[in-house]
Amino acid sequence: MHRFCRAAAILLLACLAAAAEPADWIIRARYVLTMNPQRRIIENGAVAIGGDSILAVGAAAEIANRYTAQHTLDRPDALIMPGMIDTHTHAAMSLFRAMADDKRLQDWLSNYIFPAESKNVNPDFVKWGTELACLEMSLAGITTYTDMYYFEDTVAAATKRAGLRGVLGQSVIGFPAPDYKTWKEAIAGAERYIRNYKSDPLIVPAVAPHAIYTTPDEALVAAHRLAIKYHVPLLIHLSETKKEVDDAVAKRHVTPPEALANLGVLDGRVVAAHCVWLNERDIQILKNHSTGVAHCPSSNMKLASGIAPVTAMLQEGLNVGLGNDGFAGGNDTADLMSEMNIAAKLQKVARMDPEVLPAEQVVEMATIRGARVLGLDKEIGSLEAGKRADLITLSLTPPNAIPIYNVYSQVAYASRAADVQDVFVNGRLIVSNRRMLTLNQQEIYAHIRAWQSRIEATLAQTAH
Amino acid sequence: MHRFCRAAAILLLACLAAAAEPADWIIRARYVLTMNPQRRIIENGAVAIGGDSILAVGAAAEIANRYTAQHTLDRPDALIMPGMIDTHTHAAMSLFRAMADDKRLQDWLSNYIFPAESKNVNPDFVKWGTELACLEMSLAGITTYTDMYYFEDTVAAATKRAGLRGVLGQSVIGFPAPDYKTWKEAIAGAERYIRNYKSDPLIVPAVAPHAIYTTPDEALVAAHRLAIKYHVPLLIHLSETKKEVDDAVAKRHVTPPEALANLGVLDGRVVAAHCVWLNERDIQILKNHSTGVAHCPSSNMKLASGIAPVTAMLQEGLNVGLGNDGFAGGNDTADLMSEMNIAAKLQKVARMDPEVLPAEQVVEMATIRGARVLGLDKEIGSLEAGKRADLITLSLTPPNAIPIYNVYSQVAYASRAADVQDVFVNGRLIVSNRRMLTLNQQEIYAHIRAWQSRIEATLAQTAH
Repeated sequence: MHRFCRAAAILLLACLAAAAEPADWIIRARYVLTMNPQRRIIENGAVAIGGDSILAVGAAAEIANRYTAQHTLDRPDALIMPGMIDTHTHAAMSLFRAMADDKRLQDWLSNYIFPAESKNVNPDFVKWGTELACLEMSLAGITTYTDMYYFEDTVAAATKRAGLRGVLGQSVIGFPAPDYKTWKEAIAGAERYIRNYKSDPLIVPAVAPHAIYTTPDEALVAAHRLAIKYHVPLLIHLSETKKEVDDAVAKRHVTPPEALANLGVLDGRVVAAHCVWLNERDIQILKNHSTGVAHCPSSNMKLASGIAPVTAMLQEGLNVGLGNDGFAGGNDTADLMSEMNIAAKLQKVARMDPEVLPAEQVVEMATIRGARVLGLDKEIGSLEAGKRADLITLSLTPPNAIPIYNVYSQVAYASRAADVQDVFVNGRLIVSNRRMLTLNQQEIYAHIRAWQSRIEATLAQTAH
Repeated sequence: MHRFCRAAAILLLACLAAAAEPADWIIRARYVLTMNPQRRIIENGAVAIGGDSILAVGAAAEIANRYTAQHTLDRPDALIMPGMIDTHTHAAMSLFRAMADDKRLQDWLSNYIFPAESKNVNPDFVKWGTELACLEMSLAGITTYTDMYYFEDTVAAATKRAGLRGVLGQSVIGFPAPDYKTWKEAIAGAERYIRNYKSDPLIVPAVAPHAIYTTPDEALVAAHRLAIKYHVPLLIHLSETKKEVDDAVAKRHVTPPEALANLGVLDGRVVAAHCVWLNERDIQILKNHSTGVAHCPSSNMKLASGIAPVTAMLQEGLNVGLGNDGFAGGNDTADLMSEMNIAAKLQKVARMDPEVLPAEQVVEMATIRGARVLGLDKEIGSLEAGKRADLITLSLTPPNAIPIYNVYSQVAYASRAADVQDVFVNGRLIVSNRRMLTLNQQEIYAHIRAWQSRIEATLAQTAH
């Protein structure tokens, strides 16, 4: 009888196993924060991954019944959430981290950053600076980032080595840049770069005219033409400082968003970083053009740019994501957990209302809204079957995660980037138990140290 | 000849060893950030500890020559700095962490915190809540904290178990509290508590009248009399919200600092938390009384209290430290690294000037200025011979610490609480390589989970 039962049980298991669908990974955790349209939070949940995609999200028992996985990851003391999405940064500037803080923007740019960039930025600088940034972003649970810099093909190659997803914009600017001496060369270079990466599974190539005050209208229009031709995002700094707006109004008699709209540049997939100084009309213009907004609270505070009207933008239905704007000047780390925390708190004190920008909304900004900003919400930003498998586990064992009454509050206010334990991008495990699997940390550090010596030597040559 | 040289060398070493003074610890690191009056930063530096005190701080080679240590700690990839000093918090409220966020202060207090406190706060609650907070604070590099809560003798016992230094204030309030039904009983209880802990090496007992709007004038005066009698600090919330100031002006025709000054309460060692709504006269009043100010930027932002005039206070020479104001409502974690970062950025954007409150100044607020706020700057706040050995090591191996151009900027803007590696308090190693040596994490977590269930049950009974 006993023997018969055992045989029957084995048979049953075999039948179930035969019926179960194959998966590459099953990841189980105490909570799954899906950020799906119903904002479902699953206690004792699991995610099944096949190839680059999410096969299913559900109760752990249900997923275990339905799938047989090649690999499993059990995190009973962790939370699974979508990988965070950074909608604005400058990765390679990690080499200038905290180099010249507490300065006025013009002093910082003219006496530190521009001299340091003109003397140092080349493909090797961009390669190692980007690898360092990718290492830091991965360990902090950022799975997609949005970049504006030079030698963007080098940025793309480094990002692919890391295994991160990137919306990477080749800069176009109205003065000689480290990579292209004229904006026309930059446009031609951007086109070559976009063609190279147009079908890449991880890289969304983009064109990035710097801003209306640094890039001639002709160049803005040419960049826009390129974005439309290849249906890629156009990334731009917009209404970051009061000076930018005052100058535009003095010179053009219109605000920066109006100027861009008049040039036709807002049609298509545009991501506007900062948007600190918007009036109500500007907000309507951005809304009418479905322009995505990258809100960068740390940077806006540190550079004393101002406080963006995030609550008003969200009320009008704009897509607003979070941007780290690293790694020098604006922000010195890649930390969207901290950015969520600061974004929520900054709006509350600016509006003198503790109810605005609640926890769930800033978690949205770091995930699904960020995906919408980039026009990638069909692929990423939430944990739903069919989407790309970009997800992280967040450890709930440190004392700052005990007790938990509300998962959104925990994520927005109490958890920290250092609590990120595992990171999957496009179905691939790139961080396992806080260890980066794809990049060689020691090699990166050795190159960064060598670059630091060179940068310090060039700074010493510049009289401050 | 060769043999002769070797013998001579051995003899020389023996002489040197005989001449060397004994030390309990020598800790070596890549940098020592002393925060001494000269603000010396020592590359390849070391600290020698004997008993509870710092024997010497200097170049690693010099310290090695001068001392023979029982224990050595080598951290070639870390920075040694003074332990951070939290000038205002509520430790046991860790049990309410992120329980009810994004609420208006009155809603939060009346519908969540007061019901939860009246039904739950007892010595067992305070014991485990404080132990959890001490665990988190220790791991985050906070070596001294300032508390205002109930059952403060229980807080003191938990703090001693952790091995932390605490300025711990017994609450006095004008309505029935969990520990004492009347303010008169609270004053009598505070006196017993102060006598018990008056000579403790780690605990500075204090009396903590809650605020002028919750504590009758008679109780404020009685609390002050106690503080003067025993020469202990008096801790109070002051000018936290505009309403507090408006109400005081309506009722008393003076601002809260004036009201306290008129009552004589500002004489002696007073630590005033928040000080958000001060006019110029208020700042002069606090200056004339050498009142210490605990600035709590995260809390002031999250509760939409406002932005404290920190730059103006510092310009007037006031002692302003940082307060975490945790662990529920105002802030959900114990993280003074983050508080430094936010404090600096908040002043910059509030003043629209990126040069105000630079990195070095916020590091001062978290260390030596915090010590001055508490009247403990002869004992703690900097690494100098003769001071208590309260110090931490901060790992420089994570990618957010590569490269380093400026140590103050690194600490204020780029390092994170999770980078804290070792913690010494009063000469005792309480955190070693991120592991707490003094408290039992699993035991604490088990008690916290049990308490969470009870708290959730009482919340369910309260109609919201």
